[in-house]
Amino acid sequence: MLPKKDIVLLKHLVLNKSEEAQKILANLHPADIAEILDEIKNGNKKQFLQMLSSSKIAEVLEELDPSESVEILEELPEEEIVKILENMSVDEIIDLFQEMPTTQAEHLLAKLPKEDYEELKELLKMAEDTAGGLMTTDYVYIFADETVNQAIEDARKFGQEAETIYYLYVVDNKKHLQGVLSLRELIAAPRDKKIKDIMHTNVISVKVDDDQEEVAKIISRYGLLAVPVVDDNNRLLGIVTVDDAMEVLEAENTEDIHKMAGITTEEDVLLNSSVWEASKRRIFWLIVCLFGDMISGKVIDGYSSVIQSVVAVAFFIPVLMATGGNIGTQSLALTVRGIATEELNKKNLFKFILGETLAGLQLGIICGAIISLVAYTWQQDIKLSAAVGLAMCFSLTVASLVGVLIPLLFNLMSIDPAVASGPFITTVVDIITLLIYFTLSVNLIEIFNVQNSIVQQIGVIV
Amino acid sequence: MLPKKDIVLLKHLVLNKSEEAQKILANLHPADIAEILDEIKNGNKKQFLQMLSSSKIAEVLEELDPSESVEILEELPEEEIVKILENMSVDEIIDLFQEMPTTQAEHLLAKLPKEDYEELKELLKMAEDTAGGLMTTDYVYIFADETVNQAIEDARKFGQEAETIYYLYVVDNKKHLQGVLSLRELIAAPRDKKIKDIMHTNVISVKVDDDQEEVAKIISRYGLLAVPVVDDNNRLLGIVTVDDAMEVLEAENTEDIHKMAGITTEEDVLLNSSVWEASKRRIFWLIVCLFGDMISGKVIDGYSSVIQSVVAVAFFIPVLMATGGNIGTQSLALTVRGIATEELNKKNLFKFILGETLAGLQLGIICGAIISLVAYTWQQDIKLSAAVGLAMCFSLTVASLVGVLIPLLFNLMSIDPAVASGPFITTVVDIITLLIYFTLSVNLIEIFNVQNSIVQQIGVIV
Repeated sequence: MLPKKDIVLLKHLVLNKSEEAQKILANLHPADIAEILDEIKNGNKKQFLQMLSSSKIAEVLEELDPSESVEILEELPEEEIVKILENMSVDEIIDLFQEMPTTQAEHLLAKLPKEDYEELKELLKMAEDTAGGLMTTDYVYIFADETVNQAIEDARKFGQEAETIYYLYVVDNKKHLQGVLSLRELIAAPRDKKIKDIMHTNVISVKVDDDQEEVAKIISRYGLLAVPVVDDNNRLLGIVTVDDAMEVLEAENTEDIHKMAGITTEEDVLLNSSVWEASKRRIFWLIVCLFGDMISGKVIDGYSSVIQSVVAVAFFIPVLMATGGNIGTQSLALTVRGIATEELNKKNLFKFILGETLAGLQLGIICGAIISLVAYTWQQDIKLSAAVGLAMCFSLTVASLVGVLIPLLFNLMSIDPAVASGPFITTVVDIITLLIYFTLSVNLIEIFNVQNSIVQQIGVIV
Repeated sequence: MLPKKDIVLLKHLVLNKSEEAQKILANLHPADIAEILDEIKNGNKKQFLQMLSSSKIAEVLEELDPSESVEILEELPEEEIVKILENMSVDEIIDLFQEMPTTQAEHLLAKLPKEDYEELKELLKMAEDTAGGLMTTDYVYIFADETVNQAIEDARKFGQEAETIYYLYVVDNKKHLQGVLSLRELIAAPRDKKIKDIMHTNVISVKVDDDQEEVAKIISRYGLLAVPVVDDNNRLLGIVTVDDAMEVLEAENTEDIHKMAGITTEEDVLLNSSVWEASKRRIFWLIVCLFGDMISGKVIDGYSSVIQSVVAVAFFIPVLMATGGNIGTQSLALTVRGIATEELNKKNLFKFILGETLAGLQLGIICGAIISLVAYTWQQDIKLSAAVGLAMCFSLTVASLVGVLIPLLFNLMSIDPAVASGPFITTVVDIITLLIYFTLSVNLIEIFNVQNSIVQQIGVIV
């Protein structure tokens, strides 16, 4: 990454169209140029882009979010846009078209060379979050009857346009995927060997409608640089490369973190176009939990006589609710992430549930002891202190178990476990905590009252 | 990924040492064999491994967590372990040694071939979470004076052992990094060209003590397959490959999710060795927040006269606290993730803060209206209903702002923003919410009482 001051310096040099800037730009990685472009105000971007060739602009735009790229393209004349698109890989063009109004995309599509037109038309039909939506059709294919020498020549010739030439896919004349060979194996092989004698025939591939997260996980799991995408008849349609897989994993992680915080959205946008857009993502769980938490209110209502007789009972509602919610959210995070990374499996499931519950019990004993001591010091009421301490202990044990079980249950029902958001767990735990607390308060106060009256009676008798 | 039933079938075939199993295993990817191995009980793993060659076992172990691999190795005789290690890449051996007791690691190290010994000794000194701890020394280097033809020969010859041969690093005779060339460029170039005439001289590299997350981000940002690791004098020490970068990103994401839920741990372990290990990770924020929430208790204590006069005020404590906490956690998740993915930057910061605060206000108005309606229907008390509704509105606005500002502040102070955990935000928001709620309750009840007495006085006058 470029140091901040370099970016600012460059931005000024570039806007003044200095020759020095031109020289520096020529040596910069597109990702770095994208960062400088990001620093420049919208109106000035056109001026900046004039210092770059169409092919360089294409590379720079590939580094940006498609929505940003579309904004930038809008500043340029149409013939320039077409030139830039001609220099982009098809998967990137698709990403841009998906961000544009359909009419604009179709208009631009018609201006592109014939051979791209048909291909893009097909790709545009694919769902955005599938292997088909992610793949590029710029790959190198070879035939089983070629020799190693011919294949290397093919890689040289057709490799210019391809996303990667490190995997060469072997197909028949109807594009059925028959095998794969890495460039590494190819250059290590004797030059006159036939491809069919050295290719791998059990190829790891994905289906065109496989979910993009699944595709990314397969690339990561098998340590691949790319994975071929095939249709139901095993015909090769395209490839997904490791850099796209990394982007998908990051986006899916963002989605998981958001979901766990109770933010529902399919799209990963940090800056929403309107306040209502931002609110809409959050409102579902807020309202669901709002009604859930009214049950907590009802519980307090049911036991209001306790508060009326000992108002100090109310002082400990926040700490009990909050601590229960906290431990529930901790268990949730461990469980959701354990499922996502596949660390949690049938074999270790029971051990995990037991371990987390025991940890909840242990933390319950510790926090219970602390809060009970604080309560006694503060209120000098042994009954209240006992009720608060025991409630904390029980509540944390149950909360930890709830935080583990609910996402596991969701997963069992094939619902994304991250949907079992923190707010939801907290709401459930709050209700349970208050029920435990008030039940204990009522009973302990009664027990102590009975004891007291026994003591009094004994006193009377003595 | 293999279907579940295939794994079970294979497990049985393998344990019966059938010939069929041997054939199937020979064709399986190491990641899939690792999955089957995972299904087999510890005592039986040795029997399973006997069906595989040392080099295959090495590949399989590279797919597992180092801690699991060490467990498996412990079942094998020492000479077999040494044979397996000889087939592993140095970065993987280091990972294993770091999991073993030091004496065992040193004992095994001494049994390895001389040339590996020195290299491993050096690598073992590197901190685990730096570029040095992540890198492998198995890479291909070439010299600037070679021709393309010679370089391709080098790649063929030395590429066998290397992690990747797709990037060739150009060094001088003291191993100073001078340039880089991809195999793709190499095979496209005329055979008699000199490397120095076609190599890239401004190489993207990382320092040996750079944090592993930084390294992974650079690989992702520039779409690299590997990045060279250099010392302060720009001497090439090793390379980090994209598959390791993906693992680091996943581990860092897990850490972020855990931190945000208030789980403090450097190590990513799902199953802890003891209950206390599991508790220890969670106790810090639980106790900190426990004391923080006692302040909420103190607030209620300060306003206990309000509850004593209108006990229904207590009914709405849970819903106000919970909703405030929920929206605070939502803002936190958006902010922490925005910082992590670098989507949030100086340019859009103000827009983001404003947007989230306005969203908080909008959600506050909606939730406030709902809760105020519920409160009126339930308690038929217009004062209470107004206090609850207004408190909700103010609290959600402030909570959203707090959830955005605290992680930003942490980031500004160079503290990991994910440390500003959900529990912490919730605690802060709880206190603020209760203060708003009680202040409003007291004042509204007073205002209404004054109004009532005015109405009464008017009544008297009329």
